[in-house]
Amino acid sequence: MNSVDQISLMRELSLETPSKIVMIVLDGLGGLPSPETGRTELESAAVPNLNALAAKCVCGLSDPVMPGITPGSGPGHLGLFGYDPLKFIIGRGILEALGIDFELEEGDVAARVNLCTLDDNGVIVDRRAGRINTEKSQQIAALLNNIEIDGVQVLVEPVKDHRLVAVFRGGGLSDALSDSDPQRTGSRPLAVFPSQSSANRTASIVNRFLETAAEIISDFHPANGLLLRGFSKKPSFLSFKEVYKLNACAIAGYPMYRGLAKVVGMTVLKSGTSLSGQLEILKANYRQFDFFFFHIKATDAAGEDGNFQRKVSAIEEFDRCLPLITELNPEVILVTGDHSTPAMMGSHSWHPVPVMVSGRYCRPDTVREFNETACCQGGLGRLPAYHLMPLVMANALKLGKYGA
Amino acid sequence: MNSVDQISLMRELSLETPSKIVMIVLDGLGGLPSPETGRTELESAAVPNLNALAAKCVCGLSDPVMPGITPGSGPGHLGLFGYDPLKFIIGRGILEALGIDFELEEGDVAARVNLCTLDDNGVIVDRRAGRINTEKSQQIAALLNNIEIDGVQVLVEPVKDHRLVAVFRGGGLSDALSDSDPQRTGSRPLAVFPSQSSANRTASIVNRFLETAAEIISDFHPANGLLLRGFSKKPSFLSFKEVYKLNACAIAGYPMYRGLAKVVGMTVLKSGTSLSGQLEILKANYRQFDFFFFHIKATDAAGEDGNFQRKVSAIEEFDRCLPLITELNPEVILVTGDHSTPAMMGSHSWHPVPVMVSGRYCRPDTVREFNETACCQGGLGRLPAYHLMPLVMANALKLGKYGA
Repeated sequence: MNSVDQISLMRELSLETPSKIVMIVLDGLGGLPSPETGRTELESAAVPNLNALAAKCVCGLSDPVMPGITPGSGPGHLGLFGYDPLKFIIGRGILEALGIDFELEEGDVAARVNLCTLDDNGVIVDRRAGRINTEKSQQIAALLNNIEIDGVQVLVEPVKDHRLVAVFRGGGLSDALSDSDPQRTGSRPLAVFPSQSSANRTASIVNRFLETAAEIISDFHPANGLLLRGFSKKPSFLSFKEVYKLNACAIAGYPMYRGLAKVVGMTVLKSGTSLSGQLEILKANYRQFDFFFFHIKATDAAGEDGNFQRKVSAIEEFDRCLPLITELNPEVILVTGDHSTPAMMGSHSWHPVPVMVSGRYCRPDTVREFNETACCQGGLGRLPAYHLMPLVMANALKLGKYGA
Repeated sequence: MNSVDQISLMRELSLETPSKIVMIVLDGLGGLPSPETGRTELESAAVPNLNALAAKCVCGLSDPVMPGITPGSGPGHLGLFGYDPLKFIIGRGILEALGIDFELEEGDVAARVNLCTLDDNGVIVDRRAGRINTEKSQQIAALLNNIEIDGVQVLVEPVKDHRLVAVFRGGGLSDALSDSDPQRTGSRPLAVFPSQSSANRTASIVNRFLETAAEIISDFHPANGLLLRGFSKKPSFLSFKEVYKLNACAIAGYPMYRGLAKVVGMTVLKSGTSLSGQLEILKANYRQFDFFFFHIKATDAAGEDGNFQRKVSAIEEFDRCLPLITELNPEVILVTGDHSTPAMMGSHSWHPVPVMVSGRYCRPDTVREFNETACCQGGLGRLPAYHLMPLVMANALKLGKYGA
């Protein structure tokens, strides 16, 4: 017997209403205690406004994917958007393209490219070409860009350091392809193989591109080779409009998050990377939308750099701005992160993320502070992140009853 | 759309590293309050070492299968090993064989046997043959052992009281067979039927064995009949090595737990049933392995006997030994049970089990004591037992990131 999945359930129950939802994502919000103070970044920050909101609303801890799993930005955000990240998967090539604001078209096949170093026998000796700098790789990308093979255009754009993205554009392409990247040194780059017969033509085009490209860059030691992996098409997930009947927009300063918002059909608003700029955009567009994905990158960036104090400051900066959001009086405000990025680990982690849902109809709990320890006692308990969307929809009175 | 299941996810993300994990399973750990004191067995025990560990680490409550479900030892342990016990199932016959350290071979089909009492018309009047003692049933098992039918050897071994196990060994056997045990008195033992045509030959062999065996024991009133159920083959689960890349061992005094560890491919170390003996084995083998399943039976045995005080003492005995484990400095220690066995019920129960995960990267909570009530406030919240393996793997830094 099949179970009703959450997306179908939302599609069936969601109602179009004028109420507004603001989803605030402090990227990498969750942390770990500083060994000196025993307090996490959030527990060390002065956050009077977050605490005041926590005291009025319902709090908890959220698992981005499931206990123990450290998510990348893709799964982290899909979960927040209500798409179970173990079911809805975005390929590596597409994620790289989203990460540089590449305008993907229907049918495009994208792949992640590593520039690499080959020896005289064509054997890989460094999979990252000595991590050559972005300026160099921009020059190489320009040489490889716009090659045409059998009517298929190959667009190559730099990402960062040795990383590029290649997008194959033309009719009837398939992404059912194996990687050319053997993921280790000591062997030659591989030919690409189709995993279905419908991908035969694409495989042959990709292999001809690889030959042509290899010749072009053969003298550019240490970046004299290239490795492709993660061939993928833009996924065709049901959009926010179709699932939730929401007219949703994204206010995000960085391309990856704008790209992820686009995948679920949000309107992406032009926004700089400054918090004050993002807040102005929110205010200016407040009447036109009923769902706002508001993404703050500074918390994660500080955590990734292992900079505890800078993460504390980023949280405090947001706290000072919070009243500018609450005074808009949205029916529901959600504050959380897409995953934890403890400064003491300097990377994403598996730890659950504090979350609070504020609104007229939430059932307040005893939590009076917004942080990892206090949220353990919250009324939301511990829940998978992909359950948060149904929860905010309900709190905005945007969901009908299930069953009679 | 298909979801990535946890075993596949672990297989994809797990990393081989030198860090070590000790999983301590106090069988039947969870309890219920004594009516006199209002405190559970664990809350009544003096456990300074468990409490000290709890104060430094993250605690919670774990459901062996799901809320309300009382597990046997099989599902209880499969959950702890990270195999969802609602998806991974071990047949009854195989469990009985594991329970007596029977050396199963590839292709063996095992069944649980009840000796029973038949009247003069061959009708079952007692499904347990008056619960005849083990000594008697050993004699009967010896008479039935090593019968050969059509090239298939039938091995019969005593388990306890009226219970035996029968193992059919020979090429091409199937376990797609119905029971001969009608599970009620007042009817005759049934013939065994194949549920697939590929089991036709096995069914005929089993039925011929049943006839031969019935004749042999027909004079041994009250054990003058036998009933077979739970025909099963050893399941072919992916091993700990394949799933987690762990070199795992089991230190367990009782055959059932050694058998369950074997099913997931752990190396079973020779170990007595005394705690001090088990600890010596742990210490002696500490360098050779990176995962240690350390099983303590005394807590469950006392609970099953309804002996509250003996369960308290068993917990206290373990607490005194805990420093011998912590001083080995494993990167991660997990302490929990495979299910609850409240002394006041004298049986396994459905109540969730206290759990704590200790390690450098755990996020401590406010819990300062290790027991059922205190763990309600823990940072792990309440989670299914099969999520504990991803969690300890993460804490040992043995899992890569999911998605980019």
